[in-house]
Amino acid sequence: MNLVLLAGGVGGAKLAHGLQAHRGSDLTVIVNTGDDFERHGLLVCPDHDTVMYTLAGIDNREWGWGIAGETFAAAGMLDRYGEETWFRLGDRDLATHIVRTAALRAGDRLTVVARRLQVGLEVGPIILPMTDEPLRTEVRTGAGWIEFQDYFVRQQQAPDVLEVRFRGTATARPTGEVLAALADADRIVVAPSNPLVSIGPILAVPGLRDAIQQARGRGVTVTAVSGIIGGRALKGPADRMLATLGHEVSALGVARLYEDWVDRFVLDEVDAELAPAVEALGLAVHVTDTIMGDDAGRARLAGELLSLPL
Amino acid sequence: MNLVLLAGGVGGAKLAHGLQAHRGSDLTVIVNTGDDFERHGLLVCPDHDTVMYTLAGIDNREWGWGIAGETFAAAGMLDRYGEETWFRLGDRDLATHIVRTAALRAGDRLTVVARRLQVGLEVGPIILPMTDEPLRTEVRTGAGWIEFQDYFVRQQQAPDVLEVRFRGTATARPTGEVLAALADADRIVVAPSNPLVSIGPILAVPGLRDAIQQARGRGVTVTAVSGIIGGRALKGPADRMLATLGHEVSALGVARLYEDWVDRFVLDEVDAELAPAVEALGLAVHVTDTIMGDDAGRARLAGELLSLPL
Repeated sequence: MNLVLLAGGVGGAKLAHGLQAHRGSDLTVIVNTGDDFERHGLLVCPDHDTVMYTLAGIDNREWGWGIAGETFAAAGMLDRYGEETWFRLGDRDLATHIVRTAALRAGDRLTVVARRLQVGLEVGPIILPMTDEPLRTEVRTGAGWIEFQDYFVRQQQAPDVLEVRFRGTATARPTGEVLAALADADRIVVAPSNPLVSIGPILAVPGLRDAIQQARGRGVTVTAVSGIIGGRALKGPADRMLATLGHEVSALGVARLYEDWVDRFVLDEVDAELAPAVEALGLAVHVTDTIMGDDAGRARLAGELLSLPL
Repeated sequence: MNLVLLAGGVGGAKLAHGLQAHRGSDLTVIVNTGDDFERHGLLVCPDHDTVMYTLAGIDNREWGWGIAGETFAAAGMLDRYGEETWFRLGDRDLATHIVRTAALRAGDRLTVVARRLQVGLEVGPIILPMTDEPLRTEVRTGAGWIEFQDYFVRQQQAPDVLEVRFRGTATARPTGEVLAALADADRIVVAPSNPLVSIGPILAVPGLRDAIQQARGRGVTVTAVSGIIGGRALKGPADRMLATLGHEVSALGVARLYEDWVDRFVLDEVDAELAPAVEALGLAVHVTDTIMGDDAGRARLAGELLSLPL
């Protein structure tokens, strides 16, 4: 069975990890690249790498990001050289960006070098960048438009986000690999990632939403897991972003953002009371424990998603 | 007093470090870039960096190369990604190559970014790449022409060197900074570096030898320290290279290579008997202990060189 997961960073990585634990399905993860950025002349792809490190089993569980046992010797030198280091890259992580950047400069597509990195770390599932072209998320704060990582890391998500836009939509298009994965999909799952800046950029790639709709047209079910539980984001600024952008800060608010292209919405048990309102949008609803606290929790949620009717 | 030192890697770095310890002279090191190479898409400049790390006081004395306390976490990941890692770059060292490469890609000259790195490490003396253009040392072995680092690091100097050539001499030229340093020099010293592949490439930059001769024309003395002591290179393959390239394997052999553009030759005490033969070449001779075993040895040799008549 061909399973396609749309994913951002940490929430997407956890669900991908849970899905990977179940045999009998071929997992392809289409990952957000809107967070990608250049630092020290190197292309950094945070969401791709978070998913990759997690599927490789080398993610740093203690920190919730980066690589287990990571060190920062290079960052100390970059400091001495006067480089901006508010996005502090670990030594092991730097190797990823170095290899990726060298391959891109040599003419490889992002998708191709991403797969080479995955193979190097013996990652079985395919992790596909949503596009090979740069498509960059920017947010407007009280101080104007800024790059996503400036907001997310440097300013630690402190400013209110008043608007979101994606730079590069004129030239970005889904890769052949993304289109093929969606065309071959038996099941599409949307990870409990930030709907606005993790799943939003994926849908902003011109043609990608159509490809999902075509899959639905041939009977494929799209199941989305809410990243908002009890009115709060488990991690990250999704709840505050929903509020400042004028959406309801609840799983229902997320369901409304997805209603046009999703068939089934998965609510956490604490949000069971929202089921009728979500069903009223025309979506099927499944209620379960969606918190992936440990490996068992990841595998349990993944197993439940895989057991839902196609 | 403006002092210019022509230098390769380790021997040059030691003498530069000794000279730096003496106040009252402004030191400019013109450093060999023939060993430079690209690895993982990054430009590595071994001789420049060895001199820089040594003058910054962060050189690894135990290993004789690299940075004190260096770690290799990134190299372990590069291995996993299937990168060639016979030239194993440390985490701190990688930061240097990353910053340099990013600046070069942004359009900075090698000389400018090199100085920025030096300033980051609070290096007082100016270390000038001999040229901003690529000029690469290649050696011919029984297996044909290979890049210098292939011979030096990967093959650990095992093959006989049958010929040396410099790729890029058609386009390389001395930088304005190098020409200005030589034009302003009150004293020029040649470090006890490999005459063939450390000092040789510097002289191979078209126009650089002329600039030295012009300095001599206005009365500047060029003093070279022999890197061959008692018929052996203290470090590296200089002795074997002299032999396979048909030169006498002795300080006299080195003096013969330098006789056209050097005024004074410094012999180690163990080679005192060679003084008459070197003098017969038309060079002044100074005999002293040239082994720079520790900081005191470096400072002693440097002080003695500075005390020689201009």
